[in-house]
Amino acid sequence: MPNGAQILIDGLVDGGVRVCFANPGTSEMHFVAALDEAPRLRPVLCLFEGVATGAADGYGRMTGRPACTLLHLGPGLAGGLPNLHNARRAATPLVNVVGDHALRHKRLDAPLESDIGALAGTVSAWTRRTYHATELAGDVAQAVAAATGPPGSIATLVVPADVSWSEAAAPPAAVPAAARRGLVSVDAVTGAADALRSGEGVALLLGGEAARGAALVAAGRVAAATGAKLLCETFPARLERGAGRPAVERLAYFASGAQRQLAGVRHLVLAGAASPVTFFAYPGQGGALVPEGCAVHTLTVGAEDVTSALEGLAEVVGPGPSPVREEVVRPALPSGELTAESAAAVIGALLPEGAVVVDEANTSGIWLPGATAEAPPHDWLTLTGGSMGQGLPLSVGAAVACPGRPVLALVGDGAAMYTPQALWTQAREGLDVTTVVFDNRSYAILHLELGAALGPEQGAAGGARARRLLDLSHPALDFVSLARGMGVPAERATTAEEFAASLKRGFAEPGPFLVDCAVPAPV
Amino acid sequence: MPNGAQILIDGLVDGGVRVCFANPGTSEMHFVAALDEAPRLRPVLCLFEGVATGAADGYGRMTGRPACTLLHLGPGLAGGLPNLHNARRAATPLVNVVGDHALRHKRLDAPLESDIGALAGTVSAWTRRTYHATELAGDVAQAVAAATGPPGSIATLVVPADVSWSEAAAPPAAVPAAARRGLVSVDAVTGAADALRSGEGVALLLGGEAARGAALVAAGRVAAATGAKLLCETFPARLERGAGRPAVERLAYFASGAQRQLAGVRHLVLAGAASPVTFFAYPGQGGALVPEGCAVHTLTVGAEDVTSALEGLAEVVGPGPSPVREEVVRPALPSGELTAESAAAVIGALLPEGAVVVDEANTSGIWLPGATAEAPPHDWLTLTGGSMGQGLPLSVGAAVACPGRPVLALVGDGAAMYTPQALWTQAREGLDVTTVVFDNRSYAILHLELGAALGPEQGAAGGARARRLLDLSHPALDFVSLARGMGVPAERATTAEEFAASLKRGFAEPGPFLVDCAVPAPV
Repeated sequence: MPNGAQILIDGLVDGGVRVCFANPGTSEMHFVAALDEAPRLRPVLCLFEGVATGAADGYGRMTGRPACTLLHLGPGLAGGLPNLHNARRAATPLVNVVGDHALRHKRLDAPLESDIGALAGTVSAWTRRTYHATELAGDVAQAVAAATGPPGSIATLVVPADVSWSEAAAPPAAVPAAARRGLVSVDAVTGAADALRSGEGVALLLGGEAARGAALVAAGRVAAATGAKLLCETFPARLERGAGRPAVERLAYFASGAQRQLAGVRHLVLAGAASPVTFFAYPGQGGALVPEGCAVHTLTVGAEDVTSALEGLAEVVGPGPSPVREEVVRPALPSGELTAESAAAVIGALLPEGAVVVDEANTSGIWLPGATAEAPPHDWLTLTGGSMGQGLPLSVGAAVACPGRPVLALVGDGAAMYTPQALWTQAREGLDVTTVVFDNRSYAILHLELGAALGPEQGAAGGARARRLLDLSHPALDFVSLARGMGVPAERATTAEEFAASLKRGFAEPGPFLVDCAVPAPV
Repeated sequence: MPNGAQILIDGLVDGGVRVCFANPGTSEMHFVAALDEAPRLRPVLCLFEGVATGAADGYGRMTGRPACTLLHLGPGLAGGLPNLHNARRAATPLVNVVGDHALRHKRLDAPLESDIGALAGTVSAWTRRTYHATELAGDVAQAVAAATGPPGSIATLVVPADVSWSEAAAPPAAVPAAARRGLVSVDAVTGAADALRSGEGVALLLGGEAARGAALVAAGRVAAATGAKLLCETFPARLERGAGRPAVERLAYFASGAQRQLAGVRHLVLAGAASPVTFFAYPGQGGALVPEGCAVHTLTVGAEDVTSALEGLAEVVGPGPSPVREEVVRPALPSGELTAESAAAVIGALLPEGAVVVDEANTSGIWLPGATAEAPPHDWLTLTGGSMGQGLPLSVGAAVACPGRPVLALVGDGAAMYTPQALWTQAREGLDVTTVVFDNRSYAILHLELGAALGPEQGAAGGARARRLLDLSHPALDFVSLARGMGVPAERATTAEEFAASLKRGFAEPGPFLVDCAVPAPV
């Protein structure tokens, strides 16, 4: 008879899981042992839980398949929570398998005992603890169904060690509830169509799945036919862009920029996006971004099928195909000083076709959208939940998901230091990831935020003690040394020419490569 | 008028907080700005929240003062939870200040919105959100009181950004409720004394504060007078040991070892410790470690004063002072092969007087207790909660707490990779920490656990896929490169002589130093 761990793995594989990003401990040893007999499930070792969860998020965003992690009790889950927060905001289908103490051991309050359910509840749409090996097949099927139900969410299955090691009769194949799209509201489509044909300023705000695939194509048709502005949420999970795709502007991070983008909009149609709000609140500013007098039209809510809704809308307002710019236009390769702006031009000049770009570049990334807008088609993955340390792990999962595509991770130096261990897994798995660390030796975004929070009248730069707490220059981080320490070849670039040469080497290299991109801090 | 952030910092300082281990974000910018006017509060920047919380734990364990962290919303707190789990098990007095969105912003469900209270509740004895700047002085006083109340616990204060930036009248000095020791039960002392004088096998199991200071001295007198065996919990928060201190055996991690230590014990007196249980459950084994027929005598519970109880007990059973071994006895410096055993001998031969040893060495650490038992007096800090990645952060906090004392961090390679960013803060603050990474290129403890879980009849070593998930050799981690990348000088040692030379350099170096100690894996 199989044991619980074997039943669990079979259930995951039956549910479509192919990869498990793992940081196991003692309570997961039967799961680990069972991998020997489970060639269809690929385990990927991560040296920190935040790498495992971020990698699972990247994998799920790129495949649409259920992503999977294996974590060790409450503290292991806790270490993975920051990137699970991002995955929740990305609506990534993701199953966490969290090992726990044997049921009879829990009352003993051994050192690792903690409230796993409370932790899981903060990110999961579905959480369950299995109490007997015979229930495992059903529970894992439900976990997968919960994770993959549209639009995608996190399911956490807590598996006590004795449930893993106990034998149970091999269960009949469990049939998970079919995950179905919700229907589309005809009224909502008609209302949006009326707004789009009103002749007043109209914008379409795309979010979630509307930023890619057939939904994005349909949104492009709508925009072309009606003159509507095509926007997407500030931090899309996965935005398809570049030549051949409709041009979409991401809503700016700071309120002033977003307000400029939305100025004059009288009708805002939400397609898979929530009504826009600022990322943070600031003294004396409101948080909602919808301009006064602008009507908001919600095309779909929750699990409703945003692709069908946009296609229906396109049929009504713009029945023909839309012309899209097929031509690739790249910036010229710059020379001289290496800055955030010249680095962006280098990236735009060299970005390979089909690249998956993972963007946690924060301040250094402001020139990237413009420099890459007409590059060959590529995907752009962003910091959906604002929880730092996402970029490097996400690149691991994206590369595992898309073995034929180059992955480019663009990360700030501060962001890189939350989860640097991801570089080791890049090397371990031989992943084709080129990592660019924008090395400005500063929490530059926080210098800006300090100014925004204090306002100019209070001495926006802050004093020496405050500034030191946002400074990364003492000591300077040597990312070349860090990368090599984890088996990733690396170079430092200090001019635009050097950066271009390094980036070319990174793209040519079949495995991982890191470029330490020395740029000045913006403040 | 001061703003909330200034009131908060004043309250922390008034409550005895002197250091704040910080990883701030936007919602904490007013706190950061207020540091300019708060010279009595030293901010220590950590590049990952798990470093901040582990450092706070180390600081609190060594000073007894309230430790403090500054964290950024739910995801920031979440990143710090694994080491807060350890701090909770260590009964470390610790105040988390967690910034949150402005109150009016919370309903907008901005990307960083999450359930901070649920996260905080998993580790905190006290959690509160402040809703108005006028309430902050009282809330911070209560937070400090809650954290420092015996035996010490975690208090989490959630401070919305608008509470930080709003002005309020400077409050009168808040008077926190006095934290008082509970009384001691005379019956419990008498019962323990009767057991100790029974003539049957008796052991005293020390935990928490009983492993140090006057409590430990009293326990030594009791043991000397009665012949009781002196044990302490497997993972004490802080054990004082070495020449001049009573010799205490730590209860073994694996059940078989602990059972040997407890064999023949008819009376077990618990002093600040819980009744012993195994760390994990295994198939076919019970979790409780008290031998059959052994009576358990609980000297103190909860906040009762274990020091007074042990001193009272010593007055009853052994009124005189006890002889302690004052003589320092060190192992000879070994030569030749570098192994966990010879490395332990080198450490025993060279350990400086007054050292603070942080131990997350797991499998490679098994020879350390014997090799250092009669070294000059030192403190030993261990992995109280079993949540990995504690060692390097703990060393940061211990060194900040004890500027005159050398800190020795002993960490496994696997453990080091959960929180390597701590090395940067070691360098940033110029901390006198010598780090030894036991580099066996393996999750060696999990190889042992895999065997223990599977049992010999199932092929205890596991197959190739299982073993690969516990292997750290592809690629090999280069800790010298990693350390230098974060500003810490480092060397690799491959023989006992090289290890001794490197360790001497580390102890001589006033700032941080890392030794990559190449040892074979035990399996």
